[in-house]
Order: sequence, then structure tokens, then C-alpha cells
Amino acid sequence: MRVKPRTDEFPAPEVKTFPDCTKIQTHTITIVPRYSETDQSGVIHHTVYPVWFEMGRTELLRANGLAYSDLEKNGIYFVVAELSVKYRRPAFYDEKLDLVTTCTRITSARVEHSYRLIRQSTGVLLAEGTSILACVDKDGKPRRMPAFMYPEEEPEEKS
Amino acid sequence: MRVKPRTDEFPAPEVKTFPDCTKIQTHTITIVPRYSETDQSGVIHHTVYPVWFEMGRTELLRANGLAYSDLEKNGIYFVVAELSVKYRRPAFYDEKLDLVTTCTRITSARVEHSYRLIRQSTGVLLAEGTSILACVDKDGKPRRMPAFMYPEEEPEEKS
Amino acid sequence: MRVKPRTDEFPAPEVKTFPDCTKIQTHTITIVPRYSETDQSGVIHHTVYPVWFEMGRTELLRANGLAYSDLEKNGIYFVVAELSVKYRRPAFYDEKLDLVTTCTRITSARVEHSYRLIRQSTGVLLAEGTSILACVDKDGKPRRMPAFMYPEEEPEEKS
Amino acid sequence: MRVKPRTDEFPAPEVKTFPDCTKIQTHTITIVPRYSETDQSGVIHHTVYPVWFEMGRTELLRANGLAYSDLEKNGIYFVVAELSVKYRRPAFYDEKLDLVTTCTRITSARVEHSYRLIRQSTGVLLAEGTSILACVDKDGKPRRMPAFMYPEEEPEEKS
Repeated sequence: MRVKPRTDEFPAPEVKTFPDCTKIQTHTITIVPRYSETDQSGVIHHTVYPVWFEMGRTELLRANGLAYSDLEKNGIYFVVAELSVKYRRPAFYDEKLDLVTTCTRITSARVEHSYRLIRQSTGVLLAEGTSILACVDKDGKPRRMPAFMYPEEEPEEKS
Repeated sequence: MRVKPRTDEFPAPEVKTFPDCTKIQTHTITIVPRYSETDQSGVIHHTVYPVWFEMGRTELLRANGLAYSDLEKNGIYFVVAELSVKYRRPAFYDEKLDLVTTCTRITSARVEHSYRLIRQSTGVLLAEGTSILACVDKDGKPRRMPAFMYPEEEPEEKS
Repeated sequence: MRVKPRTDEFPAPEVKTFPDCTKIQTHTITIVPRYSETDQSGVIHHTVYPVWFEMGRTELLRANGLAYSDLEKNGIYFVVAELSVKYRRPAFYDEKLDLVTTCTRITSARVEHSYRLIRQSTGVLLAEGTSILACVDKDGKPRRMPAFMYPEEEPEEKS
Repeated sequence: MRVKPRTDEFPAPEVKTFPDCTKIQTHTITIVPRYSETDQSGVIHHTVYPVWFEMGRTELLRANGLAYSDLEKNGIYFVVAELSVKYRRPAFYDEKLDLVTTCTRITSARVEHSYRLIRQSTGVLLAEGTSILACVDKDGKPRRMPAFMYPEEEPEEKS
């Protein structure tokens, strides 16, 4: 069973109406690497990028009117099924980075995202990545994605 | 509410009898710092030491016959109430360190530990620390420590 | 020897004039806990707070006109000598927190900070902390703090 | 420039003779997930797996007679160029996992590894992954792999 955030610590959460559908496909956030994210080779450790990717898709979801924490409160969990990263150039401590997250495909079972990490000062691409998330319930069992998250027709899935 | 590990992934856990009391006060584990734990100053980042301290007290508990995960399965959670660290000399990637964890005091409400991190090759003390843990239930409410964890008489608490 | 950021990746850094002195004592940043910072008890893991404290003092420094990375480029490193944290109430995923960082004392050898972590929605204090940083050179040897960082007279140190 | 570990903290390092060639292709280590590696869904956070993969290839290298830290001391750095992970089933706190790391290909420029993470108690495969490392010098410039690390003939590269 997955954890349910304790609500007695908080003011009663507002009743959340889920959006009709997710309309925004791409969202950009600024990342400033933390000192704790560097390693002794003087660059950001490669395992930090997937942490940022998770932040990127969280903010893409929020741009669509929804907090991931609201999904979890409704028993909807996303788990990472696949992840890939290509590291092109190192990222450094305290520089400004743009992380562009794009939702590339949604079906009733999976969400695919792509990520581009770009140095703000030069526009240089530092890394690219993709992920596939699966939707599960509080017991970790696969479940359908909430309807508002994917187009009703889903023609590419019915063929 | 705190999470309960999903048991359907595992063979049925053996029935665990808690020990009569915790007898071992001090336990030493070997730590080998990971590359991801270094920072760009070439040393282990200071926020990693509390992660190791947690490992140290987990293994001290195990040396007393008990896994912390068994406590959680029984609705007994420990939360860190206080933490202090003195950093004396830096620790480096891939060197062998001894972490000596000592249980310095247990009452029905709190456990206190002290920690000494020592370079194996020279015996030099790199860092010292202390922590105080409180016992809470699955909802985060304070609860008594399991009886076997503290001496029955507790004279210093009754005065 | 500590790492020197590689400059060939960047546009030539602007020549940085250090400020005359640090004037701002207190600075507040907003923290939004990441999913990766939670643990299976459903709260933010206690070892994440010192990561945030480091961010807090970095931004306090920046509010005084100086990036920590500029200090490192000039061979000035700060290392954590002491750290303490009192955890009063748990922090949760994706909630808004205020981290108030105050510089409580500076001498030619050390900087002391205090930290207060506050839930934005209720104003409740979640945690408090302190740290002492020492100033070292690129080889990790103690060195005097840059003059602009502490008051010239330092009367409390001369007595 | 990448960091050179400070040697004044240590006894003089033994003179290290690099092995003639790397002979061991596969190596298994045991991983016991730390509490700090869990997340609020009650499982190990997916970004921790690449940290373990790095530990796996470090120990495969050591099984071949070489510490990665010795490579760095000789100005040889490996950087991750590509990473992929397939997550099949969740891993849990404090369970015993086998991480099987295999070196699948070495050329003068790149090393490829594959990873299999297996639950010890049941033999179930939890995750699989691959990585490609590139060899760079202390300034981050590409350089040839040390000769002992790849077969002299390299027939598949000469065609």
C-alpha cells in the first residue's frame, strides 16, 4: 500500500476539480544546480538529471491545472517504467539551465515524455532524455489513466 | 498515515519475535563513500554524514536482533527530533571509514545515539555526531517505545 | 586540491568586484520539496534539510551581491564545521516552505548561520538549525575570511 | 579542470601497477536499499538505480584489479554518455538485492555496461539497464582508454 499524506497537519485541502483535459504539451522550467548535486569531477553528477526530469513533468502537469500530489490523494500514482538519458556536455554548479519537458504520447496506460536540458547563457543542449510512466493504484496495481489526461478517441491506440 | 510495505511482492515474512531487551550498546560498520556522495570541492558532501548515521543506528538495532523494517511493520516508527554533527576532517571517495554508533540513552519516549566516523587507514577521527529519535505511531503521533528497547526500571526517568 | 570550474564551457565570466561589505543579515527563500526528497514514512527525509540550509545561505550571500561560485573561483572555500537541526514537525512533498536564513556571527575565521523552516500556509515552524562554516583555501588549509565579509573592527573578537 | 584528491590527508598511496588487461566481464554485488533512498510511494525512488549501477561498474573494475580512484589519480576520467533503465518491479527498503554488472563492449573511446537488479529472496528481476561511458582527461577532453582496458586487436572496431 502506498502512503497517504497526513491531512491533519494542513488546512483542509480545497476540493479539487480535475481539468477536462490536458492541453499544454510542453513546459519549461529553470533549474539552478545545487552544490550538493556536484561531484568531485567538478560537474553535476549524472544521476541528478532524472531528478530534474521528474520536476519538469510535475510542472508540466501543474501547467495543465493539476498537482501530482492531488493525483496521489485520489489514489492515482505514476511509476517510472523506462528512462533514458543522453549526456552531451556537463552541467555546472549554480548556472541557469532550461529544462524543456514535452509530453510526447499518452494512452490509457502510459505517458511518454521527452526532456531537453539547455544552458541558458549559450543555448547549448547539455542533455536529452525520455521517460515512460505507468499508472498504478495505491497497491501498485496497473490502472487506467484518468480520462482527462488522454484524448478520448485515442485513434493511434485502437488501430 | 505512514506507508505499509506491500507484502504481496515477498515471500511471507517470518513471524518475528522481538528480543527481550537490547543489550548491545555500540556497533561499528564500514562505510565506503560513493562517487555520487562527493562534491566539487573534492570531498564527501557534508549532508551525506547523517545518511550514514542512519545506517549506523539501523545496524546497531540489527545487532540487537531487530530490523527497523520489522518495527515499521508493527506500527512503530522512529523520527529524528535532533541532529548535530561536528566535521573535523574531510572524508574522501572510496576510502574505508569506520562508523561507530553508540546508544547513549533510552527512555520510554526517546533514543539518543552518538556517532564517530574514523578513517580506517590512520585511525583519525573525521566527524562526530549525535541524534535524538522520538517514537511515533503510523499517524505520526507520539507513542511509548517498545518495552524491550529500554531498561524496565528507568530510574533516571522516574525521579 | 579542490576543483576549479572549467571555464571553456562558458562565456568569459564578467569581472566580479566583491562588495565592500555584507550588509543583509537575513534572507528568505521558498522551498518546494521534491518527490525524490520524500521517504517511505510519507514525509521529507531529515537529511534533506541541511541541503536546503546550504541553499539558504547561498542565497543570503547572493542577496549581498556575491555568488558562492565567485568565491570558489577566487580560491575561497567554505566548509561546514558544525551543523545542528531540531525537527519539530514533518515537511511534506510539494508544499510551500519558507526558509529564513540569518547570519548570526562572522569572524575572520568562521561564519555562523541560523535557519528557520516555516510552512507558508500556516506559519508553523517545522524545523530550526544552525551551522558554522570555516574558510579554507583550495588545498583545504584554513585561511582568513575575505575582509568584506566581516566588520572591520570585530570588537567581540579582540577582547 | 577536475579535482585531484588531496594526498596529504593519507598515508602515501602504494604505487599502483595497472593490470595487463581486464579479464573479468561480470561481477555481482549485494545492495541493501537505505531508508533515505525510499520515497513516499513506499518503494525505492527510481533515480537511485543509476547510483547503484555506478557502484556496480566500480566493483567490476576493482574485481579486475583496479580502483576507479586510481584511474582519476592518473588523469583518466570516465563520464556517462548514455544511460537507460527499465523498471520492472519496485525495490523495497532493507531487502537484499543482487546487482549483476556486465561489461558488454570496450573500444578505445567507450565502455558499455549492462545491469540486472535481482531480488535475492525470489530471484525476480526488478530492473535492467545499460550505460555508455566515455574516457576524458582532467580537462574533460576526450582521450583514449588505457590500453589494458580493451583487447589489443579490437577487430570489430577496425572494420
